[in-house]
Amino acid sequence: MKTDLLVVGAGLAGCTVAERVAAELGWDVLLVDRRSHLGGNAADEFNEAGILVQPFGPHIFHTRLAEVWAYLNRFTRFNGYIHRVLARVNGTEVYLPLNLDTAETLFHRPFTAESWRDFLDRRRTPIAEVRNSRDVALSQIGEELYRWIFEGYTRKQWGLDPADLGPEVLARIPLRFDRDTRYFSDPFQGLPSGGYSAMVRAMIASPRIHLLLQTDFAAVRSQVERRVTVYTGPIDGYFDYALGELPYRSLRFEWQTLDREYAQGAGVVNYPQQEAFTRITEFKHLTGQRHPRTTLCREYPCAEGEPYYPIPNPENHRRYEEYARLTEGERDTFFVGRLAQYRYLNMDLAVAEGLKVAGTIIDRFRG
Amino acid sequence: MKTDLLVVGAGLAGCTVAERVAAELGWDVLLVDRRSHLGGNAADEFNEAGILVQPFGPHIFHTRLAEVWAYLNRFTRFNGYIHRVLARVNGTEVYLPLNLDTAETLFHRPFTAESWRDFLDRRRTPIAEVRNSRDVALSQIGEELYRWIFEGYTRKQWGLDPADLGPEVLARIPLRFDRDTRYFSDPFQGLPSGGYSAMVRAMIASPRIHLLLQTDFAAVRSQVERRVTVYTGPIDGYFDYALGELPYRSLRFEWQTLDREYAQGAGVVNYPQQEAFTRITEFKHLTGQRHPRTTLCREYPCAEGEPYYPIPNPENHRRYEEYARLTEGERDTFFVGRLAQYRYLNMDLAVAEGLKVAGTIIDRFRG
Repeated sequence: MKTDLLVVGAGLAGCTVAERVAAELGWDVLLVDRRSHLGGNAADEFNEAGILVQPFGPHIFHTRLAEVWAYLNRFTRFNGYIHRVLARVNGTEVYLPLNLDTAETLFHRPFTAESWRDFLDRRRTPIAEVRNSRDVALSQIGEELYRWIFEGYTRKQWGLDPADLGPEVLARIPLRFDRDTRYFSDPFQGLPSGGYSAMVRAMIASPRIHLLLQTDFAAVRSQVERRVTVYTGPIDGYFDYALGELPYRSLRFEWQTLDREYAQGAGVVNYPQQEAFTRITEFKHLTGQRHPRTTLCREYPCAEGEPYYPIPNPENHRRYEEYARLTEGERDTFFVGRLAQYRYLNMDLAVAEGLKVAGTIIDRFRG
Repeated sequence: MKTDLLVVGAGLAGCTVAERVAAELGWDVLLVDRRSHLGGNAADEFNEAGILVQPFGPHIFHTRLAEVWAYLNRFTRFNGYIHRVLARVNGTEVYLPLNLDTAETLFHRPFTAESWRDFLDRRRTPIAEVRNSRDVALSQIGEELYRWIFEGYTRKQWGLDPADLGPEVLARIPLRFDRDTRYFSDPFQGLPSGGYSAMVRAMIASPRIHLLLQTDFAAVRSQVERRVTVYTGPIDGYFDYALGELPYRSLRFEWQTLDREYAQGAGVVNYPQQEAFTRITEFKHLTGQRHPRTTLCREYPCAEGEPYYPIPNPENHRRYEEYARLTEGERDTFFVGRLAQYRYLNMDLAVAEGLKVAGTIIDRFRG
């Protein structure tokens, strides 16, 4: 079999490259995916009750990148959804990130920007050398807020105590000094009006793009003659795990459809304390769908399963860098996306990286 | 590229063969389709309002074949829907096929089975040699019912006056002598509970089955090494139209979503008289979906577009037979399905034909 461009992986990065190269170079593209659907973990579908859900967890598009926003708006409109996240803390619900309202509810007293800043300054635990994620949190927000909001959540999310996680995991705790309850402050936010799956179908609708699904890269690797390869799968898999495996944190989902119109006050409610799950998503908030019933999804982070989150620690970073060095020997092959770059890319960055790689290919091969 | 079985066309016939051969022989199967979806014209999807619709027109599964029913029930449950069709005749709505209720409403008088039979006997126009579809209708139900219910519908459906259509088009007009309002009397009826697309996905979920979509047969014909080919595409296309083209009647659909729970009294309402469309489908009746809005689909038969209905006339039959003779020279290639057999197969027959071909392949190659 012959094609001009072989794209491995039909997630956002892969679909972006496929679309651009087919449109700009007029190339034939073969887009291969191990799974039977397009859009990777951003895919959505209607469940048996007719409610649009995201089977791989909530995906809210948000970006500051005008170029990415303009690009995707060629394939879909967006629904204007503004993401808000509640957290159930000490038996009550407050908005995240921590803002003045949150602080007033949790500490039972009024705050101004100034008094909230002073308050945090007094609670912070000075730590000379920040060596782990617990240190990060303690030095930024102090013991109480750390225990209430971050300790349990992080432990569930990563399966490790924050004290055993590198500082890069919590990195920077977002704090607000106003009453803005939005989760993201990016100027462009929303979900594709018809869903992510429809958006992705529109992206790769060109008759020059052929889809090969339910098919491993291994099955086509030596079988498909091509000029260029774009690989968006796991980087360690590409090299047959020659330098060892790069680990991921995965998710297990528990689904529930209720005979009521809504079940919670926001699209996502976090459970940072005793519950076994980390959060509950109610998709109708995200999609704006009107429906007499509603579907909820509880998330249980776990070690085994589909790869979701690269695990950030020095050993994994080093191993990734070694793999990255191997890629330099791969002629006419580009590595892009969360799995190939072993980096948790938000959707906008996956598209941005895809556009970058597509630009390189287009520049090189343009007649 | 290499596979054991190449299946061209991911409609019901193709998916049935793919499933059976992968399961029984453990073969690798490559399932190719020109379009980007599975299930051919039986495919369904949720529209932007979240209502499950069938973009290629209403598909109601009904069969007397217990084997086919048992086979499909391995992949889905069925929702128990019993199809009822209303027709808007002389400004009122009556059930089809013609039954005692219909007759009483249209003729403003009571009927028994016997008096209805007598009535029809008196109205029938004796025709010595039935030469066209108009003759068929006149000789079975007489002038009035023919004009009210069949003349306009047939003219819209086929773009020709019934007098210019072979007798095979109307063939036999179904008549009821009781008050049964069901459109089909098959013992097994319904729609897949999760829809046809979900049923088909379940059928071809095996990791041995690979999907190649948005790809013409021409693109893989000489590129994919295989032991057996199952071709479900248009038979004339397979032979490059060497003996001329086999014509099809097509459909254009007009969609409307209304802000009310239901809009009509049955899943399908036929319009056999002055309207330009033949029927309106309201999918919520078929699927049983609960939703505050409802989607309607008007059908306009037309000459150009996706192939739907083989046009039954002696010339086309003869041409098909000539193509069928050519297939005998094609080694290890099987032709099955509506387009390859140039025969309007109901869904149950498409599956039955698929099972038959799969059985032949399995018998021949079973170690």
